[in-house]
Amino acid sequence: MDGTAPFFGGIEAGGTKWVCAVADAGGEVLATEVIPTTTPETTIGAALRFFGGHPPIAALGIGTFGPVDVRPGSPTYGRILATPKPGWADVDVVSPFRAELGVPVRLDTDVNAAALGEWRRGAGAGLGTIAYMTVGTGIGVGAVVNGGLVHGLLHPEFGHIRIPHDTGRDPFAGSCPFHGDCLEGLASGEAMRRRWGRRAEHLDDPSAWELEAGYIALALVNLTYALSPERIVVGGGVAKHPALLPAVRARLLTLTAGYPGPPVPAGPAAMDEYVTGPALGDRSGVAGAVELARAARSEAPASW
Amino acid sequence: MDGTAPFFGGIEAGGTKWVCAVADAGGEVLATEVIPTTTPETTIGAALRFFGGHPPIAALGIGTFGPVDVRPGSPTYGRILATPKPGWADVDVVSPFRAELGVPVRLDTDVNAAALGEWRRGAGAGLGTIAYMTVGTGIGVGAVVNGGLVHGLLHPEFGHIRIPHDTGRDPFAGSCPFHGDCLEGLASGEAMRRRWGRRAEHLDDPSAWELEAGYIALALVNLTYALSPERIVVGGGVAKHPALLPAVRARLLTLTAGYPGPPVPAGPAAMDEYVTGPALGDRSGVAGAVELARAARSEAPASW
Repeated sequence: MDGTAPFFGGIEAGGTKWVCAVADAGGEVLATEVIPTTTPETTIGAALRFFGGHPPIAALGIGTFGPVDVRPGSPTYGRILATPKPGWADVDVVSPFRAELGVPVRLDTDVNAAALGEWRRGAGAGLGTIAYMTVGTGIGVGAVVNGGLVHGLLHPEFGHIRIPHDTGRDPFAGSCPFHGDCLEGLASGEAMRRRWGRRAEHLDDPSAWELEAGYIALALVNLTYALSPERIVVGGGVAKHPALLPAVRARLLTLTAGYPGPPVPAGPAAMDEYVTGPALGDRSGVAGAVELARAARSEAPASW
Repeated sequence: MDGTAPFFGGIEAGGTKWVCAVADAGGEVLATEVIPTTTPETTIGAALRFFGGHPPIAALGIGTFGPVDVRPGSPTYGRILATPKPGWADVDVVSPFRAELGVPVRLDTDVNAAALGEWRRGAGAGLGTIAYMTVGTGIGVGAVVNGGLVHGLLHPEFGHIRIPHDTGRDPFAGSCPFHGDCLEGLASGEAMRRRWGRRAEHLDDPSAWELEAGYIALALVNLTYALSPERIVVGGGVAKHPALLPAVRARLLTLTAGYPGPPVPAGPAAMDEYVTGPALGDRSGVAGAVELARAARSEAPASW
């Protein structure tokens, strides 16, 4: 470094696209590029070329689809674990960047990165405990608790919780290759595509969206009672359907049934503040990845 | 204080009994007393007499049944919220102790206190993220994440998550006055008593315990995927039945179905380490309450 303010890099490494960004020292994104996710070699190579075409960065943050080994010090740190995505199991998404760019790399899940992005710069700014849920091809949750992202044995995999499934109303057996009718198996974009025979963005049947809202509301009941978040930010492609979040909020009020009462949202106005879309739109994840990079160079807690 | 090492007080304020303790500066409990929970006046009065009969304490920690306002600075801090327990709604469990003893009082839920006790001095010692679940008259979860207890809008109320309920196998409608067949409504001691017509400790029917193990395993799946804890400590009266935890562990292995693979427990030996009883037996909660008191006098994070 020559003493000028450093630049930072971020990658939201998704299952269908990677979003790469270079940001200034304050985290403001200066340039982005969207790369389709193909083979590991091609995708990682394109990301490396993006960073090669910009001023050198001081650190890189990566928020990746998972499951992924996010445990610093683990011999398999940075590797994608049991993914159904062809070619990506066991791929190390950290080492190529560390080797080629020669900078610290901090890794987390895409949803933890998105939670961090919204907490630092978006809908969770100024709050304590927040959760970010993506409802897209898959379902995942990231969360900030006590000033850091949630980790433990590994990282949350909230898409795989079990929720009530009324097989009389919805005989679809679920799309999850591991669990069948877990949350993701019932309510992800992939589940909708397989249940209805078309992609969510082409689905207009109100009963399809009513069913979907019911499942997402059950997920948010469980998230509410598990973490007591101050806000839940819901992003992802499926969540963009304009009918979804209003129906989820109404159903969530019914399901919580006023328990335990305020300060947990007990009316429509409070619920509008409690369940929101992402303030950063489609850029929560990459903004959080940049924050991971900034944290790699600062005194921020090791947990993010 | 006269310069000698201080003493600390702790109360586990349960729905059926209060456990009061005085501990030395290192947190070792020197004296305890168990007080039946009757009216607020009688119960609080008896606890005050306990502390009056011992050397003065420098701070008091209280882990109470809930829901309870644990938000420091809230105008209703210390008050019990929507409890079905007669006479206890809106009772302030902090002010009488602060006024009478003249010391700092730190408050949390009984299960957060138990999680803290097990994390500092029991089955969670040395670990990062841990969860404590009680299965007794009710069901609750406390957790330590990023070095502090989990709080947000209020505190976790994990007993009220929704789980799959096969009404063909178990037509019982559930005992929760708010949600019917939420986790607590299906699997608490109160639910067992109402479903089977006798208290859990008098139930020997293997099919009753198999059903119970299935519900608790569903709860632990969801807790695993929500928090990724390194260990789940299961306490409470119902969990003492010798058939329960072994059956829960086996069922949890089936339900997680190897996803996402190690480091999440993928075999019986790892599962034995993952789901354990409390190392502190019936004293997790009061030990944690003492830790809350010690934290009130130290540089510990405000979150515990």
